[in-house]
Amino acid sequence: MAVSLADLRAEQPGVFSHACPTRTVLDHVMSRWGVLVLCTLAEGTKRWGELRREVEAISEKMLSQTLRTLVADGLVDRHSYPMVPPHVEYRLTERGQQLVDRMMPLLEWISVNAAEIVGDQRTP
Amino acid sequence: MAVSLADLRAEQPGVFSHACPTRTVLDHVMSRWGVLVLCTLAEGTKRWGELRREVEAISEKMLSQTLRTLVADGLVDRHSYPMVPPHVEYRLTERGQQLVDRMMPLLEWISVNAAEIVGDQRTP
Repeated sequence: MAVSLADLRAEQPGVFSHACPTRTVLDHVMSRWGVLVLCTLAEGTKRWGELRREVEAISEKMLSQTLRTLVADGLVDRHSYPMVPPHVEYRLTERGQQLVDRMMPLLEWISVNAAEIVGDQRTP
Repeated sequence: MAVSLADLRAEQPGVFSHACPTRTVLDHVMSRWGVLVLCTLAEGTKRWGELRREVEAISEKMLSQTLRTLVADGLVDRHSYPMVPPHVEYRLTERGQQLVDRMMPLLEWISVNAAEIVGDQRTP
C-alpha cells in the first residue's frame, strides 16, 4: 500500500499534479458536501428531499450542484420517475460504493477525534 | 465498521451535523490542499519550500493558511530553527499520521480511477 503521495507518484508520475484528472476528481469528492452526500447515500436510495434533510444545513443550490457533479462522475445514479409531482431518486453506483468504502474509515476517525482536535484549541 | 453516515449517527447522534466539531475538522482536512499537504508530509519532514514545490500549483497564501490550520488542529508539527535565514520544518504529528493512514487508500483509489471518471464525461 502507498503510504505517501511520493509512493503514488513513483508508480504513476504526475499523479495529483496540476491539471491531472486526479486533481479534478479530488476536488469533486474531497469537499465537505461531496463527502457528506456520498456517505448519506451509503445507507441506500434517497429522494432529493431526504438528502436535503439528512445532509443538515446544505443549501438547495449546493445540493443540486453536488449531485450534478457526482452524477457526471458516475458515482451517483439519478432516476426520475415520470409522475406528478416528479419523483427523483439518487443512489450510489458501484464506483460510488467503492469510493465510499474508502471514505468511511476516515469519517469514523474524524467522528472519534474531532472533539479533542477542536477542544485543544480552546485551552491555552 | 460503520458503512454509512447513519451508522455513525446511531453511535454518536448529531455527528457531522451543523455546528458539530466533526464538521469543522471535516472542512479542514477534506479539502484539496489539506489532503495534498498531509499526504506529502507522510513522506517525512519537509521545509516550507519543499512543500510549495511538491504540492504543485499551491499558492504561497494557500500553503501558509493550510499549514496554520493543520498545526492548530495538532495534525502537523512546526519547528523553527533559530538561524539566518530562518529554517522552518513541518512534520506529521502522531495524530496527523493516523489521519493520513486513513487517507491514503482513498487517494490510491482516486489515482487509479480518475482517468476513467474524467474520460467518461468526454465521450457522449
